[in-house]
Amino acid sequence: MVADVLRRGIHDGDIAGSLDERALIVDFNVSRNTIREALAILSGEGLIDRAPRVGTHVVARKLDHGLDALQGLQETFVHVGEVHNVVRVATLVDPPRAVAGKLGLGTTQAVYIERIRHLDDEPISLDVTYLVPDLGIPLLDHDLEANDVFVLLEMIAGETLHHASMTVEAIAADPHTAAQLEVGSGSPLLLLERLTHLGAARRPVDLEYIRMRSDRICLRSTAQRRTENQWPR
Amino acid sequence: MVADVLRRGIHDGDIAGSLDERALIVDFNVSRNTIREALAILSGEGLIDRAPRVGTHVVARKLDHGLDALQGLQETFVHVGEVHNVVRVATLVDPPRAVAGKLGLGTTQAVYIERIRHLDDEPISLDVTYLVPDLGIPLLDHDLEANDVFVLLEMIAGETLHHASMTVEAIAADPHTAAQLEVGSGSPLLLLERLTHLGAARRPVDLEYIRMRSDRICLRSTAQRRTENQWPR
Repeated sequence: MVADVLRRGIHDGDIAGSLDERALIVDFNVSRNTIREALAILSGEGLIDRAPRVGTHVVARKLDHGLDALQGLQETFVHVGEVHNVVRVATLVDPPRAVAGKLGLGTTQAVYIERIRHLDDEPISLDVTYLVPDLGIPLLDHDLEANDVFVLLEMIAGETLHHASMTVEAIAADPHTAAQLEVGSGSPLLLLERLTHLGAARRPVDLEYIRMRSDRICLRSTAQRRTENQWPR
Repeated sequence: MVADVLRRGIHDGDIAGSLDERALIVDFNVSRNTIREALAILSGEGLIDRAPRVGTHVVARKLDHGLDALQGLQETFVHVGEVHNVVRVATLVDPPRAVAGKLGLGTTQAVYIERIRHLDDEPISLDVTYLVPDLGIPLLDHDLEANDVFVLLEMIAGETLHHASMTVEAIAADPHTAAQLEVGSGSPLLLLERLTHLGAARRPVDLEYIRMRSDRICLRSTAQRRTENQWPR
């Protein structure tokens, strides 16, 4: 797919500045219509800008968020820009059973935090966080607007986080989320569920549902080949 | 978000069978409207079925595709069902420059394969694959409908794949892809770009653009905490 190759080129920084339709027709060896369809897709995603006479220009490059290393947003983007959080909710709640189960809570309350996370004043993700109360309650006394939860958890616990298990899905932005993230309703978002475990005991302490703008963030990872295969039929 | 917690519960298999609105209101401690909005989201995603008198039932569970281990679809779902590929294109092409660059090809041609991948007769992903010619040309003589490309590559090369670097994005299905995958136009899809490296030399040999139905597949991964942090402000 032409759009996929161009999109990755833009993200990787290999494609920047202006795009020439005729050069793309030669490079991809496809029709003018195919190139125009691809550019329309990328334009719809906000990656390029097309105007008569002015031509086609790359306007946005996505940010990489590594899936291999467990890092907060501020740690990840420390060299990219300023992360600032708008805290919409930060309180104690009776967690849903599924959440209580994952955090090993029984009938105890959990700390619930809802934040809109901005990079240089642009909203990039809407994070819902459930924390175990022994760490979550002291965490509420700290500055949640300027700090990653991960860093605060490690300071309060006095030990480092160990690992997180994650799932990634693509979802359509519901109207509420779309408004918060300043994207169109129905826009594709990445949804990351992340259960983070603390210290040598690997205790689950932090369960997050992170909705990321896919026009601004892409996830990056590495996989190792582990299995020995049988020859195919 | 109620929908996020329920969605994960369904995927994990913790929530199955019928869902009771009143029990959910108690469990999540939210209004009937909030529960109904969440159920409407999940219904729209095809995960649950809602009918008057009959009530709300879980109808679909997603499949996990591990991001940590480098496996083909057939290797991944060997215990889940039968993977069958419809090969739409399999030919030599002049690759776009961005593709040639990643595969280290210069001006050589590449093998281009386009497949719709089915699990038990349901289309789950649309895969576009570029292969280096010394491995890709012999691969064209094999049965691409029944075999993973990874397994064929290892057989032809006589050595195992080493690792892959990947990026994950959420995109909206364009009309062509939507028709092939039998989803609505604009539905959220996961787009995985995967560059796979072969053997001890770690030569890049296989570049794929994989569009997955997010209503049927979710990606699973693990992250390790590596960095020592400074205490927050």
